Amino acid sequence: MTKNKWVYSFGDGKAEGSASMRELLGGKGANLAEMASLGLPVPPGFTLTTDVCTAFYENDRKYPDGLEAEVAAALTAVEKTVGAKFGDASMPLLVSVRSGGRVSMPGMMDTVLNLGLNDGTVEGLARRSEDERFAWDSYRRFIQMYGDVVLGVEHHHFEELLEDHKLAAGYTLDTELSADDWKEVAAAFKEKVADELGAPFPQDPQEQLWGAIGAVFGSWMNQRAVTYRRLHDIPSDWGTAVSVQAMVFGNMGDDCATGVAFTRDPSTGENVFYGEYLVNAQGEDVVAGIRTPQNLTVAARKAQGSDLPAMEESMPEVFGQLCAVRAKLETHFRDVQDIEFTVQQKKLWMLQTRSGKRTAKAALKIACDMVEEGVLTREEAVARIDPGSLDQLLHPTLDPKAERILICHGLPASPGAASGRVVFNADDAEKAAVKGEDVILVRIETSPEDIHGMHAARGILTSRGGMTSHAAVVARGMGTPCVAGAGELRIDYATGVMTNGRGDTIRAGDLITIDGAAGDVMAGAVPTLPAELSGEFATIMKWVDEIRTMGVRANAETPEDARTAIRFGAEGIGLSRTEHMFFEAERIVAVREMILAESEDGRRAALAKLLPFQRQDFIDLFRIMEGRPITIRFLDPPLHEFLPHTEQEFAEVAAAIGATAEAVRLRANQLRETNPMLGHRGCRLAITFPEIPEMQARAIFEAAAEVVAKDGIAVSPEIMIPLIATCREFDILKAVVDRVAAEVQAEKGVELTWLTGTMIELPRACLQAEAIAQSAEFFSFGTNDLTQTTFGLSRDDSGSFLGDYERAGIFERDPFVTIDEDGVGELVRIGCERGRKGRPKIKLGICGEHGGDPLSVAFCHRVGLDYVSCSPYRVPIARLAAAQAALKGRG
Amino acid sequence: MTKNKWVYSFGDGKAEGSASMRELLGGKGANLAEMASLGLPVPPGFTLTTDVCTAFYENDRKYPDGLEAEVAAALTAVEKTVGAKFGDASMPLLVSVRSGGRVSMPGMMDTVLNLGLNDGTVEGLARRSEDERFAWDSYRRFIQMYGDVVLGVEHHHFEELLEDHKLAAGYTLDTELSADDWKEVAAAFKEKVADELGAPFPQDPQEQLWGAIGAVFGSWMNQRAVTYRRLHDIPSDWGTAVSVQAMVFGNMGDDCATGVAFTRDPSTGENVFYGEYLVNAQGEDVVAGIRTPQNLTVAARKAQGSDLPAMEESMPEVFGQLCAVRAKLETHFRDVQDIEFTVQQKKLWMLQTRSGKRTAKAALKIACDMVEEGVLTREEAVARIDPGSLDQLLHPTLDPKAERILICHGLPASPGAASGRVVFNADDAEKAAVKGEDVILVRIETSPEDIHGMHAARGILTSRGGMTSHAAVVARGMGTPCVAGAGELRIDYATGVMTNGRGDTIRAGDLITIDGAAGDVMAGAVPTLPAELSGEFATIMKWVDEIRTMGVRANAETPEDARTAIRFGAEGIGLSRTEHMFFEAERIVAVREMILAESEDGRRAALAKLLPFQRQDFIDLFRIMEGRPITIRFLDPPLHEFLPHTEQEFAEVAAAIGATAEAVRLRANQLRETNPMLGHRGCRLAITFPEIPEMQARAIFEAAAEVVAKDGIAVSPEIMIPLIATCREFDILKAVVDRVAAEVQAEKGVELTWLTGTMIELPRACLQAEAIAQSAEFFSFGTNDLTQTTFGLSRDDSGSFLGDYERAGIFERDPFVTIDEDGVGELVRIGCERGRKGRPKIKLGICGEHGGDPLSVAFCHRVGLDYVSCSPYRVPIARLAAAQAALKGRG
Repeated sequence: MTKNKWVYSFGDGKAEGSASMRELLGGKGANLAEMASLGLPVPPGFTLTTDVCTAFYENDRKYPDGLEAEVAAALTAVEKTVGAKFGDASMPLLVSVRSGGRVSMPGMMDTVLNLGLNDGTVEGLARRSEDERFAWDSYRRFIQMYGDVVLGVEHHHFEELLEDHKLAAGYTLDTELSADDWKEVAAAFKEKVADELGAPFPQDPQEQLWGAIGAVFGSWMNQRAVTYRRLHDIPSDWGTAVSVQAMVFGNMGDDCATGVAFTRDPSTGENVFYGEYLVNAQGEDVVAGIRTPQNLTVAARKAQGSDLPAMEESMPEVFGQLCAVRAKLETHFRDVQDIEFTVQQKKLWMLQTRSGKRTAKAALKIACDMVEEGVLTREEAVARIDPGSLDQLLHPTLDPKAERILICHGLPASPGAASGRVVFNADDAEKAAVKGEDVILVRIETSPEDIHGMHAARGILTSRGGMTSHAAVVARGMGTPCVAGAGELRIDYATGVMTNGRGDTIRAGDLITIDGAAGDVMAGAVPTLPAELSGEFATIMKWVDEIRTMGVRANAETPEDARTAIRFGAEGIGLSRTEHMFFEAERIVAVREMILAESEDGRRAALAKLLPFQRQDFIDLFRIMEGRPITIRFLDPPLHEFLPHTEQEFAEVAAAIGATAEAVRLRANQLRETNPMLGHRGCRLAITFPEIPEMQARAIFEAAAEVVAKDGIAVSPEIMIPLIATCREFDILKAVVDRVAAEVQAEKGVELTWLTGTMIELPRACLQAEAIAQSAEFFSFGTNDLTQTTFGLSRDDSGSFLGDYERAGIFERDPFVTIDEDGVGELVRIGCERGRKGRPKIKLGICGEHGGDPLSVAFCHRVGLDYVSCSPYRVPIARLAAAQAALKGRG
Repeated sequence: MTKNKWVYSFGDGKAEGSASMRELLGGKGANLAEMASLGLPVPPGFTLTTDVCTAFYENDRKYPDGLEAEVAAALTAVEKTVGAKFGDASMPLLVSVRSGGRVSMPGMMDTVLNLGLNDGTVEGLARRSEDERFAWDSYRRFIQMYGDVVLGVEHHHFEELLEDHKLAAGYTLDTELSADDWKEVAAAFKEKVADELGAPFPQDPQEQLWGAIGAVFGSWMNQRAVTYRRLHDIPSDWGTAVSVQAMVFGNMGDDCATGVAFTRDPSTGENVFYGEYLVNAQGEDVVAGIRTPQNLTVAARKAQGSDLPAMEESMPEVFGQLCAVRAKLETHFRDVQDIEFTVQQKKLWMLQTRSGKRTAKAALKIACDMVEEGVLTREEAVARIDPGSLDQLLHPTLDPKAERILICHGLPASPGAASGRVVFNADDAEKAAVKGEDVILVRIETSPEDIHGMHAARGILTSRGGMTSHAAVVARGMGTPCVAGAGELRIDYATGVMTNGRGDTIRAGDLITIDGAAGDVMAGAVPTLPAELSGEFATIMKWVDEIRTMGVRANAETPEDARTAIRFGAEGIGLSRTEHMFFEAERIVAVREMILAESEDGRRAALAKLLPFQRQDFIDLFRIMEGRPITIRFLDPPLHEFLPHTEQEFAEVAAAIGATAEAVRLRANQLRETNPMLGHRGCRLAITFPEIPEMQARAIFEAAAEVVAKDGIAVSPEIMIPLIATCREFDILKAVVDRVAAEVQAEKGVELTWLTGTMIELPRACLQAEAIAQSAEFFSFGTNDLTQTTFGLSRDDSGSFLGDYERAGIFERDPFVTIDEDGVGELVRIGCERGRKGRPKIKLGICGEHGGDPLSVAFCHRVGLDYVSCSPYRVPIARLAAAQAALKGRG
């Protein structure tokens, strides 16, 4: 094995790493190296690779051999470039220590700034900066940050000490504190640390450095990071890199600033420079959203009606440099960049660049624009859009005609409209979501601790923070509507009340609506309209459909679903669940009569009442789908699902169908099952009561005959028999279908075409696929049930422990969301291979909910399915995912 | 394709077929051919092969080309041998037409005798036999039998006409009817047939012959035959052959007789000639059990205290011939034979020979005797015993010291003792069995229609019929205790009462006990003693253990089970379900406390109370098993199984553990699951509550430490983690086991050995076996759950439709009884292969109930498992099945 290189240096116009090394250096480290190589002003530093992190965790949290020497050498190089020395009392080098994984995990992990300060170097910093107050303020910040992050002394201790000092001195604002005040505070902080730990605050910069490096690596496994990775499907073995970089200061005075920017508007995608800055501040101040930041450009300032000067006005020269950087970065990376910069005494320093997170709408516009600009090919543009993000576009917006009672206005931080009841903390949001309630999470500002609640909420509203605040960034990533920085709101967590500028109060539990595209907050639930899809959406989708080779259908039963499916580009219906049609008011009575009948004759009489309804259902679907394929699944759930369960309901049903309540109760009890998922359902019902599939087949064929005759539409239904475990089951039921088809054709004097196939949703069916395919003309993989049986895991019951499983790293992803390729996926693969053996041209599809999950769609493409089918709203996502899978396949 | 030969002739000292052709000719046809070749007196005839049956069913019930000509030729040969002519009015040939499958299905299919009689030939028969009464009696029997079997005129019609005639003539017994009476009855029968069918009774013997052949082939698919095949695991595609044979008559006068015999006693296995005969009777009269038959030998007559002369006395010459046949057949077939014969006017004719069904006890004795006699090798002897039949030996007998109130005495028709409530028909027996009630089926006599009830009953009692009656033969085959021919009982189905000779009445629902070895019927439930195993059992089992290569363990938790397991030869415990230990009175309270605890501390406190109990359980098991391996499975069922479900129980539990009833109810509701089989159980509980496996591991290791230290027994527990779906689950829990082991070893200062492995019971675990085997030191296939998940079939719920499935031919065998080789079996095979890839020397076993099913044991041998584990009472069956599988494997 060749010796590992653990440390990569950058700065002074050159770097050992590059942007292509993000797996090793993390996104931040790789891009710092790239920027340095591009000649951009990057403070010099070095990056400890993700391999160090992996080795650290594999080796019981010990560092690999050789690391120490490499760090020492790299630090010496930084010292040389900067002309300062780590720990030198006269010319001290200060550094930041930051984490940086392969993909960005904003705010998820810990950072230490101003490292290298101690009782000696603070004096050197004071002299060098000619600002004693700044130096002591930096020192106390360092003690506080290091104490919290590295030493585990909780930050409230420091805040209390500071409050005490201000109280004693009669100060209100931090700005009132003098250099001597900060000196005293720093001393109190150190004392506190010594008290808490029984050891003094470390003065040795080397000890500080290794402590911070250890803390950053350690933070990879903290609860916040683990949760974030789970929510964003990031494997934990990727690890994080650590970048150590010379400090630059945006808080050395009014010729200093710090800011963040996007090279294009991440919300709309417009090609405008978009960002915020704060004068005399450290970077964390912008992200934390504590001070309201100023615009970069005059145009943006005017658009927002802000009084605070734009950077374009206040620092025109630096702004000009920044614009040049913007152009250079976009040309170089061929993508929108999200950058962080600091201005130290009028000199611009670039601290970070990364691919900019954007709304789905922006992503589409940027992709289209860049294709037009000749920057990207269509394929590259398509490959770059996150399929999951399309969800944002496909959901309703507020009905412009609806009445609105405006509560307040904030920043349009993440598009989409949402209504829900107000909750004031993440736990309540999660609890409500579990109960199926829609809630809006309202916070003064959000922090990584709130992630679970943000995920659970329909919308997020904060009273503090800008477009790049934690709430805004995370909400956009999640596709959750968000209004941020609604400053007029006063939020009192203790009483559970928020008050707007006019004194109107909203309490926890009150219903509100937010419009994340406009930044509006309204009382009550405001009606919405279906999503209006932009021209870019249509353009991209046209490219998508040219690229993809796999079909996309929708799961739909109602005419409305079917119409939505077509609007979103579905090429057919992949799953029409006939039982959904049984629950409507007029029908459920006949369904129950059928279940309560004591004889086949009784069942047939009840089924005869259902026949006209079912026939009409299919006539409607056939007409709407205009000849597109429709897969109709025979009755699947156990019969007891159609019966009531309380005494009162028994009485009502009994009255409706002319039976006794006792009879209804008895039958309901008789039908109750220990494990209904594994019970008398699917084809098993059809085997026991062949009159049911007979009626359903008749309804399908009679409907087809009518539509063929009256509308001249070529209808070719695909009849799907569920829960097949043996080929004999299928053969018996196919014979029923064929017999009824022959009868109807003879009666109506028409010739019909149809396919009979099966849902492959049991492990045994996958194994027996060759035999089943001898008779079955198509397979549709029912991966919901296949996941349940392959894992022996009930979807309905798994909620009680799935969380434990994700926390323990047993499931990288919820197997009901993304197909488990190692288990369920192998069975699907076996089913495909053997199915093709039995019938080489067999039509293969999937109709589980995985059909709308991008990772699963990619899997379906790889195993060679002919189509995926998913809920209508996920059809565009599936189309895009299928196109991306096809592109990958070309690769 | 070579031309098929459809018909094989036999008779006159030669034959085209032989005993080795039973697949083609059926058992009966093959053995008739063999007997003819041996020079035994066999009436000439011919056999239509099973291929005809297959072709008949494959070709929409049409016969293959060429059959008709072959039948005609064979019939001509028979005519020549006999010197009579089919349909000839002066010298008519009469034939029997019988079914005969590859394996015997006694009484299951239809037979027609006296075929060839018509209004003309009946006169010829009268002249030839010089017995007009006999001829007309034969003719009316033929009309009745043919009318019923071939033409579908139900037999009660004929019985009513006969009763009418007797009433009108003032007769009581059939013997009172004269030739003229029978003539009149025959005429009435023909008229009835013509009335029912609208066509005259067929007079053309050729039409009669083909009608009968069609009926026999048709009877292969009748309900009785289908049920019998299902119960006896006979594939329906084997088909039946049809043998057509010249009639001989045992009812031509007092120098005629008919009988059945076994070459050795089929009940005890003793080497004595054993049989019964009836003078002046047809064969069916013996089997039907309507007349009480006479013994063959004087010794048997004396032993039974019968007054009727033995054949040895009444027909000494024929008896001598029969003894010679007995010796010839046993020597030739090297097995006990069950023979049928007829004596026509002092001439002996052999009608059938087949391998004799025998009790398990007899089978063992015969096997041992034949090895000693040099007739069989040990391997042949072992191969020949039906493993399932051993069940008969392993069950309790009546406690000789127990008080008994004798109701009556009958024939000891099938050994074993059984208690249960009286039911008077098969349907009631089946219904009661479904509810888990033990019943004794009481019938005047049984018929094939009663099979399902006989299967469901614990014991069978009849008031009519001998040792070879339907009830006796079927009961022995099933291993069900049976007392037959208890003639003093008067049974009234209508009132549901039976009365013995003293006038004591027993009603339906009353509890009785039968002793099938003694023929006793007793009131109430008489206590029983464990089975006493014969010396032959030990001898055979010694041979079995020498032959088999696969280990056999038992599933056992209690000391009693463990002791039984050792007594029956188990080499270890393959499954000890720790949850069974949780239900005992003192423990269940602590278990419920644990479940209701709101915190880990609370759970730990409750678990601490359980620890001493569990430890003692394991100490007991380790001591009893004396160093044999013990597989201990961690807690498997969902927690709600330990909580009560009614309000009253909630209150009781609440009082016992000091909680409120409301709290208990809430927790019970909270834990309730939609599909508990797929819920929070097995390793999932252990992941969520690691304190539970910790306690269990501690109990195991502390017990091991104590037994090692105090008893000096080398204990090596095999800790089994259930319901593993991913290797990570296993790794997490193995780490808990290893940690606790280290702690206990340190605390107790002992060094322990143990294995940690897993139950492979989910499809995903089979697929992931390679990865799991990297950590797991053994696999035990849990084929109960694997069957449930592979089929998506709940064992608890499948009862409602499994019957439909078996009737529809979807399941050849209940997959919960015999492993489904195509589906579940493939997963087991995959699990074995991949498991060995991950760990070449991995120990592989099975602990589902399939481990005691002979067919499944053979499968386990073929896939190379190291052992099977089953309930203690099935251990000898598994040992024998394993030996037979090893013999088959030798080829």
